[in-house]
Amino acid sequence: MVNEFELIRNYFGALAPSAPGLLAGIGDDCALLQAAGNEALAVTTDTLICGRHFPEDAPPFDIGWKALAVNLSDLAAAAAEPRWFTLALTLPSADSAWLKEFADGLGALARQQRVALVGGDTTRGALSITITAIGVAPPAQALNRRGARSGDAVCVTGTLGDAAAGLRLWSAGSAGVRDVSGDARYLIERLNRPQPRVAAGIALRGLAHAAIDLSDGLAGDLRHILDASGVGADVWLERLPASPALERAAAGADRWSLQTVGGDDYELCICLPSDAVERARAALDVPLTEIGRVKDVRDLHWIDASGRYVDWQGTGYRHFS
Amino acid sequence: MVNEFELIRNYFGALAPSAPGLLAGIGDDCALLQAAGNEALAVTTDTLICGRHFPEDAPPFDIGWKALAVNLSDLAAAAAEPRWFTLALTLPSADSAWLKEFADGLGALARQQRVALVGGDTTRGALSITITAIGVAPPAQALNRRGARSGDAVCVTGTLGDAAAGLRLWSAGSAGVRDVSGDARYLIERLNRPQPRVAAGIALRGLAHAAIDLSDGLAGDLRHILDASGVGADVWLERLPASPALERAAAGADRWSLQTVGGDDYELCICLPSDAVERARAALDVPLTEIGRVKDVRDLHWIDASGRYVDWQGTGYRHFS
Repeated sequence: MVNEFELIRNYFGALAPSAPGLLAGIGDDCALLQAAGNEALAVTTDTLICGRHFPEDAPPFDIGWKALAVNLSDLAAAAAEPRWFTLALTLPSADSAWLKEFADGLGALARQQRVALVGGDTTRGALSITITAIGVAPPAQALNRRGARSGDAVCVTGTLGDAAAGLRLWSAGSAGVRDVSGDARYLIERLNRPQPRVAAGIALRGLAHAAIDLSDGLAGDLRHILDASGVGADVWLERLPASPALERAAAGADRWSLQTVGGDDYELCICLPSDAVERARAALDVPLTEIGRVKDVRDLHWIDASGRYVDWQGTGYRHFS
Repeated sequence: MVNEFELIRNYFGALAPSAPGLLAGIGDDCALLQAAGNEALAVTTDTLICGRHFPEDAPPFDIGWKALAVNLSDLAAAAAEPRWFTLALTLPSADSAWLKEFADGLGALARQQRVALVGGDTTRGALSITITAIGVAPPAQALNRRGARSGDAVCVTGTLGDAAAGLRLWSAGSAGVRDVSGDARYLIERLNRPQPRVAAGIALRGLAHAAIDLSDGLAGDLRHILDASGVGADVWLERLPASPALERAAAGADRWSLQTVGGDDYELCICLPSDAVERARAALDVPLTEIGRVKDVRDLHWIDASGRYVDWQGTGYRHFS
């Protein structure tokens, strides 16, 4: 951190309040943190690159929000309670208007989730943001991808495909779409300001057998659960939950493509005993939809409205670049 | 992580052995870690950018080594015992020869320091490496920058200025300097493969009042300790420890410049009671040199061989770019 980059810390001071377990934060070589004796740490790192994970003309507020959101989404999938994060920020220049808006977006989600910035590094280079988020969970209650069992229900939180539809609008409309309203605004906001399902993840402790957050799309991410658990699944395409905005924006195979390989949903996909679905639904602050069933045969099969297996591949998710 | 970038994890599998407190590592949304009940966590993040923190033609082995070393150096300054790290790697392409050599360098230091890779992210873009390292220390024994007191001795481990001299050779000689021997080889190795003073940091628990690692150069880094502690210091330029190779490569003001503002030393600078210096020296696995004295007056003064204060500014450290 040199020259005017020293000043950058001014923008982030407000994101570093005193927090549980924070013995020392920004301003030293290391942050010093303490978890309770019965808590394990959940740690995750994700990088966002300009032009790949967000368009070059994305609002800095949204970039800041999303950089933290994708990391908190990983903690949510582990049923961990977010506590602290570090920020490694690489910038082509120290643009104070950009930095203020970026810090505002980052701070809005940090405050919502009561997670404290505890350290970081700023460097000059092509715009890139790497956040490492740390949460806590009792070790026996943390969720992972490995526990799905034959007969489990496959469920997802919220709705799928909104972000992919938002990306399509953004790519087609360039900067003009910032000012849209109604459905387009909703879909683009789902792309740019995903809401990590942290409370849902914690509420699923003791209920879910396996969980993953949907970043690359249901098809690929559910497969990670199935591979790690040594099982397969049937998924009913008609049951994939869609928002009213998505229903108006896309139908049939086009909608399924957005919902299965579109990516950027940041909802949770979980496997849990079918008789626990109602209990889980009652415990969550977000809708939970049963979309499939885990089976022994180690493959992922898609079933259409007529009840037939379909050879569903989608079209593959492509980031911005 | 998409396409051939999926394969990248193959290069790093060997860096993720089972490790103390590692409940679950690579292959899930989060790593799951556990510290002992009496241990606090020390967390630090540093980014290395191609062309800024290392030359474009630096050997990938050295880039991997240094990316971890600069983070472990921060843990050393906190007197923390390194345990785990995450790697966020941004690459222009998945070049298998480059990746293998990079992983070898990262792995060599990881094994030496018994620290386990627990998670990461790979992205396509301009070459950039962000590592977040996590260590443990009893909270009351962790070191920071804030405890220096008037009358303390100012000491540094090892020798200063080697890396800056190595950088000068590298910049002058371009790729040819890879094959040099003797002094040039030694100085360039000090630049490219810094040895984090982890054992020294731990040995200084209970002895040092304040510590920092020397990344930007003694002048700037010592000032961080002085500012944080609300004190000042006198430093004797003649006492700055120099390697035989540096003594042969630079003399007088030129040497002092390399030693005070050259940067990239990754030695520790500590303040401790003057009657504890001998005990500290006996406890360390690296030479410890007393170079100055903490005083009440809040400024940093340099003293030359004749005992006079000199107006020493150096020339400011410039990274590669």
